Amino acid sequence: MLDLAIIGGGPAGLTAGLYATRGGLNSVVMFEMGMPGGQITQSSEIENYPGVFRQEPHLTGMELMEPWPKQCMHFGLKHEMNEVKSVSKSADIFKITLGNGDIKEAKSVVVCTGSTPKRAGFRGEDEFFGKGVSTCATCDGFFYKDKEVAVLGGGDTALEEALYLANICSKVYVIHRRDKFRAAPPTVQRAKNNPKIEFVLNANIDEVYGSNMGVDGVKVEQDRNILDLKVPGIFVFVGNDVRNGVLKSDDSFICDVNEQGQIVVNLKMHTSLDGLFAAGDLRIDAPKQVVSAAGDGAIAGMEAINYVQEKFND
Amino acid sequence: MLDLAIIGGGPAGLTAGLYATRGGLNSVVMFEMGMPGGQITQSSEIENYPGVFRQEPHLTGMELMEPWPKQCMHFGLKHEMNEVKSVSKSADIFKITLGNGDIKEAKSVVVCTGSTPKRAGFRGEDEFFGKGVSTCATCDGFFYKDKEVAVLGGGDTALEEALYLANICSKVYVIHRRDKFRAAPPTVQRAKNNPKIEFVLNANIDEVYGSNMGVDGVKVEQDRNILDLKVPGIFVFVGNDVRNGVLKSDDSFICDVNEQGQIVVNLKMHTSLDGLFAAGDLRIDAPKQVVSAAGDGAIAGMEAINYVQEKFND
Repeated sequence: MLDLAIIGGGPAGLTAGLYATRGGLNSVVMFEMGMPGGQITQSSEIENYPGVFRQEPHLTGMELMEPWPKQCMHFGLKHEMNEVKSVSKSADIFKITLGNGDIKEAKSVVVCTGSTPKRAGFRGEDEFFGKGVSTCATCDGFFYKDKEVAVLGGGDTALEEALYLANICSKVYVIHRRDKFRAAPPTVQRAKNNPKIEFVLNANIDEVYGSNMGVDGVKVEQDRNILDLKVPGIFVFVGNDVRNGVLKSDDSFICDVNEQGQIVVNLKMHTSLDGLFAAGDLRIDAPKQVVSAAGDGAIAGMEAINYVQEKFND
Repeated sequence: MLDLAIIGGGPAGLTAGLYATRGGLNSVVMFEMGMPGGQITQSSEIENYPGVFRQEPHLTGMELMEPWPKQCMHFGLKHEMNEVKSVSKSADIFKITLGNGDIKEAKSVVVCTGSTPKRAGFRGEDEFFGKGVSTCATCDGFFYKDKEVAVLGGGDTALEEALYLANICSKVYVIHRRDKFRAAPPTVQRAKNNPKIEFVLNANIDEVYGSNMGVDGVKVEQDRNILDLKVPGIFVFVGNDVRNGVLKSDDSFICDVNEQGQIVVNLKMHTSLDGLFAAGDLRIDAPKQVVSAAGDGAIAGMEAINYVQEKFND
């Protein structure tokens, strides 16, 4: 029986494991199919994780995360390269069903499987992802300071991120396939009032192009014409897949989730199910930043210790 | 007029400044009387800030924080070495009153002045602080793995931290000046049931002693006798001063605080006062860890950008 099962091996999962093992939980396993590190390892550049910074050459996401597993496993955290299919709980014991059909039992669970921004599907998107195509303005906007960028999407996130980019960039094209917006009307109005934002409506991205130095521009189809926007950065906001599948049982979830499928937590990262904690990008109000996900993980790890001690060591 | 005033220069304040300036706020000042870095700079050893780790020689808190100011001010954050006396708000504008009587105006405020564990006042406490005397079991407990330690205090925190230490250490003496506890009865019962915890009641610490290698033991006065406990670590939990003074106006606070004086926030670090954000150790449910304080700071910085943009750039 595990003291704690951690599902997901990004910054939140690694930090939860560091705190839980260093705090005395003996049998803690982090389930992660691939290499630990999470989404940030796909980024070509990161400069906002405090304490780890390099101006030239820029620090990559892979370099940032490289030392984490050694440190986080130094205190006894185990990494099991296995897919988790589902989590259930009965009589205070969690059952973790793995892809190969095996079942592990655990006293507590931290779920930190993250969320994945959806891809739009245009040509060049995958090739230039992390090298000009981004899904995070907070992370990457600054790299286009005083330059022109394009945003794809018409929802709340797209327009909020466009407004964020307008603080930094010289111009922001908002490319949207309709002429109406799903975003809240006051957000739409603020975007329309912003002199740096130019709307390209009833339009779709056909292709992003460039070289191995990065993106040179984006070809946009509008009214059967092709516009060529010479922008070095394209921000894609066409939705998120919250990776909450492991918490699904039949058609419902084992804990409270909101309309977007994000896990409801409080400031202690408690979900609505006793002994189940959530951390990082899949929780409500997630800022989707490495340092915040790690901060969540520390809290979840500490709370898991409290829970296991209180529930099982009495 | 500042876009954002940050009050406090620890991990939360520095990170809030990093995110706010990198996200495009132009005039952001962090008020901190001393060197930036916060309480952690007093620690002789830290190994749970993910991504920055060294086994031998151990990393000090000062070394951990050393690169932060350069990185966090790289994007335009200014540090003003000035004491903040109070913060007030009228007609959407915050007024920051400084120790010298000057008043600065700001569109938004992030407060992250932290909290200070109280000292008990025994001989050697200050001398060995950070070198055997600690106020954080999560931070320092692991350094006493399989060793004996002492805890001073009888409140909830003292007994919860004693239980945490019992997971790691071979024995935990709980020294308490009475034979009754302020802690919640179930917590007291769990501590009493824990075979690793030994109570030393109606007792006070007289002195902690050691050498420049660290603590060798603690002298405890009990019934006019002196007990000599040969422990290398003493954890002091005799209360916390939440540094919320700048938010006081006459006898009340400008935002909601709980009974312990901690600032009430939600997951977005919003306080009950529009445009005022709190981050780090002075907020409710604070885990008091560098990575979590920094995670809070990132959120507060991002939310301050949203707020300023929405409120002032319409």
